[in-house]
Amino acid sequence: MEILKINEDEIGKLIPLYRHYTSEKNFPRLSDKKIQEIWDQVQKNPCITYFIGEEDSKIIASCILTITPSFIRGGDGYGFLEHVVVHRDYRRNGYGKAIVNHVLNFAWDKKCTEVMLLSGSANERAHKMYKKIGFDMLRKKGFIIYSSRDQK
Amino acid sequence: MEILKINEDEIGKLIPLYRHYTSEKNFPRLSDKKIQEIWDQVQKNPCITYFIGEEDSKIIASCILTITPSFIRGGDGYGFLEHVVVHRDYRRNGYGKAIVNHVLNFAWDKKCTEVMLLSGSANERAHKMYKKIGFDMLRKKGFIIYSSRDQK
Repeated sequence: MEILKINEDEIGKLIPLYRHYTSEKNFPRLSDKKIQEIWDQVQKNPCITYFIGEEDSKIIASCILTITPSFIRGGDGYGFLEHVVVHRDYRRNGYGKAIVNHVLNFAWDKKCTEVMLLSGSANERAHKMYKKIGFDMLRKKGFIIYSSRDQK
Repeated sequence: MEILKINEDEIGKLIPLYRHYTSEKNFPRLSDKKIQEIWDQVQKNPCITYFIGEEDSKIIASCILTITPSFIRGGDGYGFLEHVVVHRDYRRNGYGKAIVNHVLNFAWDKKCTEVMLLSGSANERAHKMYKKIGFDMLRKKGFIIYSSRDQK
């Protein structure tokens, strides 16, 4: 699997991958205009990076790293990793671990001080993977609140 | 307490507040140049907002909200809240709750779909506050990994 930062012309291939990540109800169809707006914000933001993993000319994995500059721990910022997804047909092959490790190396190269993420409580396979990579799952508790507008 | 987005001339007052948030070893002195670099990155980034709460002409609370645009849940992005701090002398007065609620309203106004955070496992007072505000602490687990360069 080759891991890259996403290019604009691959957004159309990324979006269907999210069907392997979240339920249909969380996945309303976006207009081309809205997709372009989102991409424009992502692309021009130096703190946000969308990564993809390609195999067989397909996008089979993806995640997003956001690094927020902060005045603590030397000032190079903390990372938050989200939307970590591997295509269903390619799971249990180490692709998740590979893309997360790649992103961590990217973060450490940027002198990022720590990377955090939240993972669904029932997703024990993912927890095992994150632990294996070196994440601590006891040190912090995860909290989430949804906009009342949104389906949970 | 008045809650505002921070201005450049208040950075010098914010940094000492972080002594109420993290231990001395995580708080190396930053050069003026480095502080300016961090602030420049924060200020020009439309996805990052530093909030402060002022009382008695002092900054007594602060937190950072980062909203990452995403193609899921309609495209308006997910929020991550970090460095939530209240000055020691002003705790147990509802200031933490007030600043977090303010930031959530800001996030919902931006059509942000969800706000996530991690909180130290032992910090039961904070957990109680987040639950009271409406955060779910069972749905997700929190994971963190530190740069090997950093003290934990």
